[in-house]
Amino acid sequence: MIHRRKMRPKNAHHSPKGSFCTQLRTRFAETDLQGVVHHRHYLTYCEVARVEYFKALGFDFHQARQSGDFDLVVAEVRCRYLAPARFDELLAIYTWVSQVRHTSFTLDYQIYRDDDKLLLATAQTTLVAINPQTKKARALPEKMRHVLCQASGVLQRLL
Amino acid sequence: MIHRRKMRPKNAHHSPKGSFCTQLRTRFAETDLQGVVHHRHYLTYCEVARVEYFKALGFDFHQARQSGDFDLVVAEVRCRYLAPARFDELLAIYTWVSQVRHTSFTLDYQIYRDDDKLLLATAQTTLVAINPQTKKARALPEKMRHVLCQASGVLQRLL
Amino acid sequence: MIHRRKMRPKNAHHSPKGSFCTQLRTRFAETDLQGVVHHRHYLTYCEVARVEYFKALGFDFHQARQSGDFDLVVAEVRCRYLAPARFDELLAIYTWVSQVRHTSFTLDYQIYRDDDKLLLATAQTTLVAINPQTKKARALPEKMRHVLCQASGVLQRLL
Amino acid sequence: MIHRRKMRPKNAHHSPKGSFCTQLRTRFAETDLQGVVHHRHYLTYCEVARVEYFKALGFDFHQARQSGDFDLVVAEVRCRYLAPARFDELLAIYTWVSQVRHTSFTLDYQIYRDDDKLLLATAQTTLVAINPQTKKARALPEKMRHVLCQASGVLQRLL
Repeated sequence: MIHRRKMRPKNAHHSPKGSFCTQLRTRFAETDLQGVVHHRHYLTYCEVARVEYFKALGFDFHQARQSGDFDLVVAEVRCRYLAPARFDELLAIYTWVSQVRHTSFTLDYQIYRDDDKLLLATAQTTLVAINPQTKKARALPEKMRHVLCQASGVLQRLL
Repeated sequence: MIHRRKMRPKNAHHSPKGSFCTQLRTRFAETDLQGVVHHRHYLTYCEVARVEYFKALGFDFHQARQSGDFDLVVAEVRCRYLAPARFDELLAIYTWVSQVRHTSFTLDYQIYRDDDKLLLATAQTTLVAINPQTKKARALPEKMRHVLCQASGVLQRLL
Repeated sequence: MIHRRKMRPKNAHHSPKGSFCTQLRTRFAETDLQGVVHHRHYLTYCEVARVEYFKALGFDFHQARQSGDFDLVVAEVRCRYLAPARFDELLAIYTWVSQVRHTSFTLDYQIYRDDDKLLLATAQTTLVAINPQTKKARALPEKMRHVLCQASGVLQRLL
Repeated sequence: MIHRRKMRPKNAHHSPKGSFCTQLRTRFAETDLQGVVHHRHYLTYCEVARVEYFKALGFDFHQARQSGDFDLVVAEVRCRYLAPARFDELLAIYTWVSQVRHTSFTLDYQIYRDDDKLLLATAQTTLVAINPQTKKARALPEKMRHVLCQASGVLQRLL
């Protein structure tokens, strides 16, 4: 395993209990001429965190896609940049389910620099289940819905 | 010139009058395994549009950076994805100044597929002027402020 | 059209006659902390040039893929970096067919900075036709082979 | 540590003894519409491996850059693609010093899928030391040269 997972450490004061942590190291190729990580890569970092989170929750996104009547697309992203990440920094990304709806759900993220636990960014993505044939929104698959509600519930109980 | 500029065409019904249009063609390298342009690239498209817009407004961002006491950083992005862009599609990105503050300003974007004028995405970025030495927010350079207010004013008058 | 095409200008002294020219502008997002375009993006630039070249040659790659028994994959790339490209520079990429084989062909590229006609990089890609079902190399489609040989022949006659 | 390091495992039959291994997991954002990792990302993978290798060798590239009279640039890359990497695959990248010259050196890479030890790609990069003021090639810093020769020597002795 490359992306190590762990539950909330003592020092992530502002991440909700029950949130999921993924770590990754910033790459040289992700920097720009201002000497910092270019802002588009935070979306990729959130995606990496999301993929690991789904695995940890036991929902197999790619198996679900095989069925042919389900796919998941990003409907909205928001990211607030508080302090720049630089080359070769270890980041800790906390992810949690903030809302589950009939056809969509929202994940929230906090991206910390692991070294000094500085909060670098907060982000939010809303994902929508679609039917790949019709391209229309459809109900979340029952298993996914269950897993997300449970994850969200764990969070509620811990708060 | 690669990124052609033109003022609002008849068919961009929902872009404010006075908004700036940049065109670009989606690249193969920007697609993902779902067969569409990966969502992070829309941030790059907005950046390309922003750079062209600044040029059209006559504000030379890079000359301004040479002074040593000014830089511009992305503080927040939002993007709503309404329909997917695919490989080798010509996009038309409309950009306008939606707010000018003391140390920051906000640009809004609408990304259309040029072919059928379908609105693919709306986005918003807030940029903050900083002092590169102190890394703290600073007042927008007078010239930049002037240019942005004027652009925003043109918009107001045209609406 | 965003990627303008033209035949060899007087000043591209070292590009073979009959080579195809694509222009593009470097993006902020393509720079790295050394202040120059990151070396991986040259592969994308060559790909953009290749796509435009195929269009100009009248070979519809995407229609050919629809048949279900043809796909094209990159088997080898080489790139020599002679001078760095920087942000917001217009590049002129010359492309030509250097070799056509039974199942594969090779394209050569020269990447110039348009402003001062400085040669920034030379590159080469070998592409192989495969059968997507078996993943094995297959003969180039007849139309593609014809078009490539003709392009290569034009080059030979012009040299 | 995210990029775990280890010496040559039993099953990497063709990587030279003494080569350095870095592991990373392919990302969704790195795939393209052919359903595989886009070929440009292999250059980034090699760069990630190179950075980890330098760290393991004890050469601090970024400290060396601080001196102001040294920088390192990519002069040439080659990559041969043998089999595609797909989303969410763990890759093992073996890196070694294949040549050390006065102003430059060459690294070789083999990229394996960790799961079944299939060789996906081989690559080679030549890096040149430059003086950032003059932009001309300069002698490799003594420490770097020593470290690279030693690494190369370990390899020679082990072969």
